[in-house]
Amino acid sequence: MVDQDKLPVVAVDAMGGDIGPSAVVPGVVDALSETTGYSVALYGDKDSIQTELNKLDCSSLPISIVHCTQAIEMGDSPASAVKGKPDSPIVKAMTDHKAGIVSAVMSAGSTGAMVAASLMILGRLSSVKRPGIATVIPTSGKPFVMLDSGANVQATPEHLETFAKMGDTYCKSILGNENPTVGLLNIGEEPSKGSELTVAAHKLLAESNLNFVGNIESKQLPYGPVDVLVTDGFTGNIVLKMVEGFGALLIKILSGSKDSKSDDKSAMLEKMDYSSTGGAMLLGVKGSSIICHGASNSRAIKSALVIASRLALVDLPTKLEECLSDSN
Amino acid sequence: MVDQDKLPVVAVDAMGGDIGPSAVVPGVVDALSETTGYSVALYGDKDSIQTELNKLDCSSLPISIVHCTQAIEMGDSPASAVKGKPDSPIVKAMTDHKAGIVSAVMSAGSTGAMVAASLMILGRLSSVKRPGIATVIPTSGKPFVMLDSGANVQATPEHLETFAKMGDTYCKSILGNENPTVGLLNIGEEPSKGSELTVAAHKLLAESNLNFVGNIESKQLPYGPVDVLVTDGFTGNIVLKMVEGFGALLIKILSGSKDSKSDDKSAMLEKMDYSSTGGAMLLGVKGSSIICHGASNSRAIKSALVIASRLALVDLPTKLEECLSDSN
Repeated sequence: MVDQDKLPVVAVDAMGGDIGPSAVVPGVVDALSETTGYSVALYGDKDSIQTELNKLDCSSLPISIVHCTQAIEMGDSPASAVKGKPDSPIVKAMTDHKAGIVSAVMSAGSTGAMVAASLMILGRLSSVKRPGIATVIPTSGKPFVMLDSGANVQATPEHLETFAKMGDTYCKSILGNENPTVGLLNIGEEPSKGSELTVAAHKLLAESNLNFVGNIESKQLPYGPVDVLVTDGFTGNIVLKMVEGFGALLIKILSGSKDSKSDDKSAMLEKMDYSSTGGAMLLGVKGSSIICHGASNSRAIKSALVIASRLALVDLPTKLEECLSDSN
Repeated sequence: MVDQDKLPVVAVDAMGGDIGPSAVVPGVVDALSETTGYSVALYGDKDSIQTELNKLDCSSLPISIVHCTQAIEMGDSPASAVKGKPDSPIVKAMTDHKAGIVSAVMSAGSTGAMVAASLMILGRLSSVKRPGIATVIPTSGKPFVMLDSGANVQATPEHLETFAKMGDTYCKSILGNENPTVGLLNIGEEPSKGSELTVAAHKLLAESNLNFVGNIESKQLPYGPVDVLVTDGFTGNIVLKMVEGFGALLIKILSGSKDSKSDDKSAMLEKMDYSSTGGAMLLGVKGSSIICHGASNSRAIKSALVIASRLALVDLPTKLEECLSDSN
């Protein structure tokens, strides 16, 4: 029998997201029922968590509770919440991650508090000026990793190059893709097209040792044109939320169809379902920080926890630091 | 009988777009068969145009041909094409527009040549620093007008304010919408969210006399949240091409469905079909310049010509100049 005390621990904010424990706890139980090799510590109000656990068949699963007496509210500024609420789930979990007690932290929000706690408590990798949010974007083909999806509103060409290298390392280390293609989101295919930022970033990426395939226009995105898509956080956030909006519309239309011979459509629904692609990862900090969508249902929590458990097993920050400190 | 010589003339580049005369000429004939009050002058190689006209029943329609001996090629730089090819369809038509011989110019491209010819031959309105491309974006609800859709890669808050006012005037003058809602595309709803550009633009728009409803997140776009959406040309072009890509995917999926009870889906297909929304308009120049998608089929040409004919009948540049010179 495996010694549960030796398993890497994923800290999960049980109170996070719009739904809270009634979505998070079932998602955690589902993930642990299907995947092994890690344990989960649920951070939050112990009574609320226990109430949800009691509804489920999970006594044999490696789940523990870390009681927290504080909560971050919608109105709290992220930075002051991190400083002023040490016993809130996000802050306490991140502090435990820094201390090596847990191997990854996952929360459905707020995003601002997760980013602030990661930066202030874990800190940046020495070779990363701006950590970026990596999200997995569903498409009708293969999903791709996009970063930055909104950690920073402004970017330099050098930031975009760092995002590209972190996305590349993520694909190699976590997804097992040995030679991921990297594209730059732009408004034309030619290297000369776009803003000063994208023209300069294209040059840096073309000179790097990445498998850079050039500029990608947004009309290609629904078909999954690359493994890693690089963009600034403003544009990335616009793209992310458009995918979310169009995906929801598509699912609504397809679900409402009366077509019975719908194997193709079922496959498409599955592919385009945002809740199957896992959470967003803040790459470039000294730790593993996974941010789920605020509207996450238990299925989304489950998907994100599967990714979080892989991050807990692989020391991604060290791999990122190695990759980024290489010349080129 | 109406004197055809008195009708406003829309100049149409018969050679434009990926398909050329075999898409443009049927689209023009279809539009003129269903709408009246204007005539069309087809600019291009007269033999190629006549060959297409001969295939169609159009002898009674108000169509003329203006023969052009030059053609703008894909490799030509827009500015040098405008200077060096005065007898190409776009340049000749724009020169005739400047001289008052035609009331609007429409072409399926190249976009670069149309923008350059509009700026160099017609010139900017005195109160407009940066003309913007306005596109009509199809949604599952009502379509909206988005600008800038790609005329400029960089923008200032003042440019965005001008775009908002031009979109507002367009809705009022051409679409008959007396009180259009105006939104600012951003990565959060709160006024403080976003880049320096969007924060400053939000302030200017909130202080204007427009019906400004605030920031709009991209996840709302598939549902048609406003009448006018304001953004910089880089972000606008990303959004435009994503809508195009997702629209094509949606149509492909819905068209392939075997569902027979599909009135809802037919209506959705019609709504989301890019070719039904007309061309893009370059707003802020001293004239009416309509740019169709390079891949326009005859249906797209027809839709764009209906809009172009309205622009030919209404003196939009004068209305824009009036609106923009008002205090506020």
